[in-house]
Amino acid sequence: MTATLELACELIRRRSITPEDAGCQALMMERLAHLGFHCERLRFGETENFWARRGTCAPLLAFAGHTDVVPTGPLAHWHSDPFEPVIHDGMLYGRGAADMKGSLAAMVTACERFISQHPGHAGSIGFLITSDEEGPAHDGTVKVVEHLEARHEKIDWCLVGEPSSGRELGDTIKNGRRGSLHGHLTIHGVQGHVAYPHLVHNPIHALGPIITALTDTIWDYGNEFFPPTSFQISNVHGGTGASNIVPGSAELHFNFRFSTESSVESLQQRVQQLVETALLNEEVKAGYRYEHTLHWDLSGLPFLTTPGALVEAAVEAIYAETGFEPELSTSGGTSDGRFIAPTGAQVLEFGPLNATIHKVDECVRASDLDALSRIYEGILSRLLGR
Amino acid sequence: MTATLELACELIRRRSITPEDAGCQALMMERLAHLGFHCERLRFGETENFWARRGTCAPLLAFAGHTDVVPTGPLAHWHSDPFEPVIHDGMLYGRGAADMKGSLAAMVTACERFISQHPGHAGSIGFLITSDEEGPAHDGTVKVVEHLEARHEKIDWCLVGEPSSGRELGDTIKNGRRGSLHGHLTIHGVQGHVAYPHLVHNPIHALGPIITALTDTIWDYGNEFFPPTSFQISNVHGGTGASNIVPGSAELHFNFRFSTESSVESLQQRVQQLVETALLNEEVKAGYRYEHTLHWDLSGLPFLTTPGALVEAAVEAIYAETGFEPELSTSGGTSDGRFIAPTGAQVLEFGPLNATIHKVDECVRASDLDALSRIYEGILSRLLGR
Ligand SMILES: [Zn+2]
Ligand SMILES: [Zn+2]
Repeated sequence: MTATLELACELIRRRSITPEDAGCQALMMERLAHLGFHCERLRFGETENFWARRGTCAPLLAFAGHTDVVPTGPLAHWHSDPFEPVIHDGMLYGRGAADMKGSLAAMVTACERFISQHPGHAGSIGFLITSDEEGPAHDGTVKVVEHLEARHEKIDWCLVGEPSSGRELGDTIKNGRRGSLHGHLTIHGVQGHVAYPHLVHNPIHALGPIITALTDTIWDYGNEFFPPTSFQISNVHGGTGASNIVPGSAELHFNFRFSTESSVESLQQRVQQLVETALLNEEVKAGYRYEHTLHWDLSGLPFLTTPGALVEAAVEAIYAETGFEPELSTSGGTSDGRFIAPTGAQVLEFGPLNATIHKVDECVRASDLDALSRIYEGILSRLLGR
Repeated sequence: MTATLELACELIRRRSITPEDAGCQALMMERLAHLGFHCERLRFGETENFWARRGTCAPLLAFAGHTDVVPTGPLAHWHSDPFEPVIHDGMLYGRGAADMKGSLAAMVTACERFISQHPGHAGSIGFLITSDEEGPAHDGTVKVVEHLEARHEKIDWCLVGEPSSGRELGDTIKNGRRGSLHGHLTIHGVQGHVAYPHLVHNPIHALGPIITALTDTIWDYGNEFFPPTSFQISNVHGGTGASNIVPGSAELHFNFRFSTESSVESLQQRVQQLVETALLNEEVKAGYRYEHTLHWDLSGLPFLTTPGALVEAAVEAIYAETGFEPELSTSGGTSDGRFIAPTGAQVLEFGPLNATIHKVDECVRASDLDALSRIYEGILSRLLGR
């Protein structure tokens, strides 16, 4: 077994279901301290985090990631114990093998090799590690970032170890993510009995044209890096359960995944206008003014890392290891990159194949972890080697 | 106290909350047997009913009504015990005073006076009484009607004692009721995460144009006797509760109150077509075929008693007592008349003011019950007197 595989197995054995860390971070800090990193444990609420740094100068290249894993799901469906790593037919099985204990091991061993060859490397190397990426993420990366900003410690380049690859290791780098904005609309009407339609004002009826207006809208066309902003209603509810009663209110919950072509303000304004116009039409027909309330919850702003030193180093290192050029993509869900990018850092996500993450029999090709470690080392060499 | 008031008080004292009868029917049967009625107790399931008949010839004029009452609601809000009748300022207070123990008492005393004057009246007089009108009504009037039809016993004229009056006793007769038809529509899409809009087919989005199409439709214009058919959505539900998940299905519950200008079949066909057209539009946009299911539940067909012998007798008797002509109306909820009318009977509903029914401090003007009894007697005289 290689050093990377061994460390990945040691991390998988630690049952760190969110928000537990189960000793993963202590193990990582021990290895990093040995390399000359200054390690700070940063516990916020129930969440273990740490920040480690080797060197004091700029530029600072930080590895970012999480030690927590999602629950196993039904144990009976696993072919082996999810917390007892097994290598079978070249695949390493275990919860977190792909998301993202394999990446964490590859980051540490990449640093070990790089530092042994470049003990006086340029700039600094950092590790920003949390145990609450898979959970509410309130006390994780976002708090560590605030802590670093408070003391003016600035990350220039950030490499997040999320499993970004699709079919082959290295085929995809995430160079950004869409923003995520939640909305909650409530329409207030007048409750009553269906037998007395002149006495009710049905808020469910008012939802019809609102749903149509919102789903027929093109919010933007996306751009070179982002697909068009998408809108999905996740929940609709109205009604008392009784079949003869018109309810007094009805509500919609919806979500935008938005590109850098739209802003939070532009989306909010446009929704407000579409709702008001749709309601006005209903109101003229009904001779009644519906009240409505609209609440917003911003999960994350979009971020984008345009080609530059970090992208170039990553693309070259991947090409040197795999022989092909990765695609830059901003698809998929949100990640902790959304908290780091607003500080002005260039942020890339790069890691192993994501096909089995969050599933039973989560696994990663064992040789891919060694290759991933060499790619991380290649990025270090290109940016901080001398 | 008059005989009518005394009997009304005796009935109110019996705590006959649906489906309980609490001895009301035994009391009525005792009085009717004394007049020469042949009384049959007809218990179906938990529901007490009875059928009483005096005479064997046609035509048969039947009084219909219910001994059950709705629950009292918060006792603390009542000014007196709802099951202890009190006369105060000329008003009789108690649960069921208006709906419809007062009417039952008036029916019985009307028969007592009529029969003492016309012991050999024409045709027959019947009483069709249930204790489950305010509940599910599965084992009440509908079952008694089936029982009578099975032995070819036919009601020609039926007088239902529901509180039909608005501001003054006798201002309104219900000569019909709208039908009530429930529908339940489920749209099936493809569940998934909001971050992957190309992998989901959102059934809530498909509801928008369906709601609009159904609520924008004019189903009919009503006619001389019926207001236009009305459509109300009572419940809409879709969503897992999670804000990031598009659900696999979404559903609407809706109700028609329909006039005789629409039929169950025409409404069902038109809904089916509107849903299919709205879905087809969505499907063309989405390149995806939404499945849907549509279930129906018919609560009652509309019925209408056009002017004829019964309406004429009722209008004349009301005019003789009150000095004004009642309005014929088909508004309001359903009643047990929906079960009797399909047998071919002419059905009218006539009773006291309905302002306080189902409320706390339910009451009826004491003198109105005496007047009501005289009106019922007047109808008997006009139709069966000789
Ligand atoms: Zn992850
Ligand atoms: Zn009633």
